Amino acid sequence: MPNGARALMSTLVNAGVEVCFTNPGTSEMHFVAALDSAPGMRAVLCLFEGVATGAADGYARMTGKPAATLLHLGCGLGNGLANLHNARKGKVPIVNIVGDHATHHVPFDAQLQSDIETVARNVSPTFVRTSRSTAELCRDAVDAVKAARGLPGKVATLILPADVSWGEGGVPEPPPQIPPPEPADDATVNAIASVIGSGRSAALLLGGGALGEDALLAAARVAAANGIKVFAETFPTRMERGAGLPPVERIAYLAELASVQVADIEELILVDAKAPVSFFAYPGKKSLLVPDGCKLHTLSTPEQDAAGSLEKLARALGADQATPKLAPQARPGRPRGKKLTAEKVCKAVGHLLPDNAILIDEAISSGLMLPRFTAGAPRHDLITLTGGAIGQGLPNAIGAAIACPDRPVLALIGDGTAMYTIQSLWTLARESLDVTCIIFNNASYSVLNIELERVGAEEAGPKARSQLDLNGPILNFARIAEGMGVPATRVSTTEDFLQALESALAKRGPSLIEAMVPPTLSGLKLKLLPHVLGSLDGLPRPIARILKRKIAP
Amino acid sequence: MPNGARALMSTLVNAGVEVCFTNPGTSEMHFVAALDSAPGMRAVLCLFEGVATGAADGYARMTGKPAATLLHLGCGLGNGLANLHNARKGKVPIVNIVGDHATHHVPFDAQLQSDIETVARNVSPTFVRTSRSTAELCRDAVDAVKAARGLPGKVATLILPADVSWGEGGVPEPPPQIPPPEPADDATVNAIASVIGSGRSAALLLGGGALGEDALLAAARVAAANGIKVFAETFPTRMERGAGLPPVERIAYLAELASVQVADIEELILVDAKAPVSFFAYPGKKSLLVPDGCKLHTLSTPEQDAAGSLEKLARALGADQATPKLAPQARPGRPRGKKLTAEKVCKAVGHLLPDNAILIDEAISSGLMLPRFTAGAPRHDLITLTGGAIGQGLPNAIGAAIACPDRPVLALIGDGTAMYTIQSLWTLARESLDVTCIIFNNASYSVLNIELERVGAEEAGPKARSQLDLNGPILNFARIAEGMGVPATRVSTTEDFLQALESALAKRGPSLIEAMVPPTLSGLKLKLLPHVLGSLDGLPRPIARILKRKIAP
Repeated sequence: MPNGARALMSTLVNAGVEVCFTNPGTSEMHFVAALDSAPGMRAVLCLFEGVATGAADGYARMTGKPAATLLHLGCGLGNGLANLHNARKGKVPIVNIVGDHATHHVPFDAQLQSDIETVARNVSPTFVRTSRSTAELCRDAVDAVKAARGLPGKVATLILPADVSWGEGGVPEPPPQIPPPEPADDATVNAIASVIGSGRSAALLLGGGALGEDALLAAARVAAANGIKVFAETFPTRMERGAGLPPVERIAYLAELASVQVADIEELILVDAKAPVSFFAYPGKKSLLVPDGCKLHTLSTPEQDAAGSLEKLARALGADQATPKLAPQARPGRPRGKKLTAEKVCKAVGHLLPDNAILIDEAISSGLMLPRFTAGAPRHDLITLTGGAIGQGLPNAIGAAIACPDRPVLALIGDGTAMYTIQSLWTLARESLDVTCIIFNNASYSVLNIELERVGAEEAGPKARSQLDLNGPILNFARIAEGMGVPATRVSTTEDFLQALESALAKRGPSLIEAMVPPTLSGLKLKLLPHVLGSLDGLPRPIARILKRKIAP
Repeated sequence: MPNGARALMSTLVNAGVEVCFTNPGTSEMHFVAALDSAPGMRAVLCLFEGVATGAADGYARMTGKPAATLLHLGCGLGNGLANLHNARKGKVPIVNIVGDHATHHVPFDAQLQSDIETVARNVSPTFVRTSRSTAELCRDAVDAVKAARGLPGKVATLILPADVSWGEGGVPEPPPQIPPPEPADDATVNAIASVIGSGRSAALLLGGGALGEDALLAAARVAAANGIKVFAETFPTRMERGAGLPPVERIAYLAELASVQVADIEELILVDAKAPVSFFAYPGKKSLLVPDGCKLHTLSTPEQDAAGSLEKLARALGADQATPKLAPQARPGRPRGKKLTAEKVCKAVGHLLPDNAILIDEAISSGLMLPRFTAGAPRHDLITLTGGAIGQGLPNAIGAAIACPDRPVLALIGDGTAMYTIQSLWTLARESLDVTCIIFNNASYSVLNIELERVGAEEAGPKARSQLDLNGPILNFARIAEGMGVPATRVSTTEDFLQALESALAKRGPSLIEAMVPPTLSGLKLKLLPHVLGSLDGLPRPIARILKRKIAP
């Protein structure tokens, strides 16, 4: 019989876990040594655990199945926690393999000894297990895969003591049986159909698994036949969009705007989504953003088949043959004018976005215009920051590119954000992944300057302000990228950016473009922010009109 | 009355917490805004939380008092966890301020919502508290400072909901009363004196607070008068050493060697130290490294005054006037020969180490020769990797330089290690800290190649080996450093390294030298490792002789 590590490896591959994003240490050496015994397992080395966990997240978003991570005890798990949090919030399946000291070594409290399970509970509330014996290891692994793959996807954490890994007597297990998800039952579907037929102002709010093509088409048919609105949650895990697919308005990040979007909704129907909630709390402002009289309904939960539920709903409403509204093919023009801005970068991306791209948006304040400028671009997948823990985008790009080697990946990343997992660049280079990274360098935590105003902390002095700027020195991302083996260029004009993007998209492999841009909101009075965003963020005209009425003098 | 954040700020300053290493987000904006109200609080922005926590660790090692960190919810704490682990294992005081959502926002499970306390328990088993009201906040903060500063130092975590921070009615508190630590009681001291007087082979093992000058001198007097040995723990939090101080042999990292060091010890006396334990477990090898018959005794615990206990012991043995053995002034010569090696880098550091330096050793396998080559260099402080979570050295350098602005800091860091918290370089540049970083670029996780052999995983194939190498592409740390604003040079010859080091030490401010070196152990048969290390690692001749007898054919 093989040792634990080898048996585990073949069990994982059998269960469909075919990629492992690794950052190993000594306690994981037998797992590492077992890699060569499993031709079906690809191992991708990352230089920081947050890269490994974010890559596993991006991989699973595109394949729908979990990758493994290989992490080094509690500290390695800690380093990976932020992106596991993003995966948890995005309902993304991941199987963490966290190496631990041999069981007999634990009582000696060696340097790396810590309580791994307490850390893991933060991201794996439903499945944390320390495998107790080599004989049981593969059953534990199958349970972990099952926990991760169930709908909704979850982060499962299997702690693997070194002696369980090196012990003889591993017993490979067959893959877990995972029942297909069911759509909403008839009673629920009929009740929702009645709500929609009531004549009150209703809207569908799509999240999670309801943002793929089938679900979007079903929702768009319901909307077309019944004159209701369709919203998407603010931060989709993965959303199919672009020309030929139904356009869906996303709930805005800013609570002030989101409240306006849903202001006239009386019946909000949730499809694998939560009612919209403010990202942060602000003094004197509400957390729940729906209007007071609005009734909440649930068509389908994260445990159910969202597309199937929407299709049942369309049939119940006689809308399954309705003609859905689809986004027309409509790229923005080539941006003009010498001065480069974040808006022009987003416009250039919309202008040049290749077919079938994967677009990763972690541009924070610099990405405000991206949804509008890509709405009619060729069909693509959008990946966003699901849990608010910045540093997700570059690792996600690794995973997405490994999941879909034939699709171009574009990652739009803020400067502050990029630094959390900047080590990603090395893995992009090592694996020759076809990823174009665009870093918006505005030399500040721009969004925090907005937030400082929003929380009402207006007395901020120079020490406070200095906590939000990234100048002195200004980071040079092109240099940093070159230092990690990624070809890079730093551009300050619109034309240079366009040329750099054309060049990057024309060849396979990783590249980085550092766009030197002013903060998106500089020179604009922040008090006018809701108005400004109302006219910029792809919001429909009626909302912009309401905002103008509210704010204009 | 001030708001919670302002009251907290003045309470922290009153309690001696005068530096805050920050990586804030929206939920911490009132804390940030309050910074300008407290002239006694210095705020140091870090671009990644692991930098902030490691900087707080380095600061406290050099000042003996805690800094604060400012972290953004559970994910920010997660990112900071590895270096908090190192601080916990090193018994270093830190006060974490972890921002959280406003209390009324928590039930809405917004994107960044997670269970912060479960993460915190990993590093703060004795003090995790979520402050429940503005009125109680400053009492909570004083309790946190008290928990952190008690002997031994601890990582205390205070979770600060945004509304507790922004609420009016903060009540600043006076500093906590912290009783001075007591030395060991007379009965214990007399019992240990009897053990030493018994004629059996005894040794002192010094750790924690027993590695400062007073403690070392007292231990050296006891040793000189009684003919016993003195060891230091493997990874000191902070150790004073160099010419004019007692030389102390550190227990080796490799269990094979450590066992030999203590092979003839019959009575091991612990002074703020644990009995030596293998760093990792290995199949068929013991975890506890003292010989079977060896008796363990404790002179003083981490809760007690280690130097005072050793001084009492010296008096009890009539050794308080004995002449301690001191390290003679003896720098190594200037390294020669064109080819640069890790050994020559260490030799050059010993050759050029400035007076009163702070030496941070996270060079892993490349630093094997550092203890020997700096043993007779001018007096300095040594800081090492206390918890095994790599990525400590560069952040520690930030904190040490802020704690001791008039002392030169040298940080020797392995290439793999450097990447975990590479964002540190930006803060070094921004704060103009006098730190010389030396990165050993051997393009591999060199120590893991050793460990792969040690754990007996010898069947490793190409996939396994590729998890341990850092080539394809080889990192260029000089470029990366320049990208973060730190002047840097990459050198491949001995003379170039010497010139770069001379130049870096001649001027104030940060600099980075990337030393291109082969893996320390390349070309040597790993089976001979114990012998090789026995002759290299500053071990005394008798041990080298024992090793030779054991291993020579």
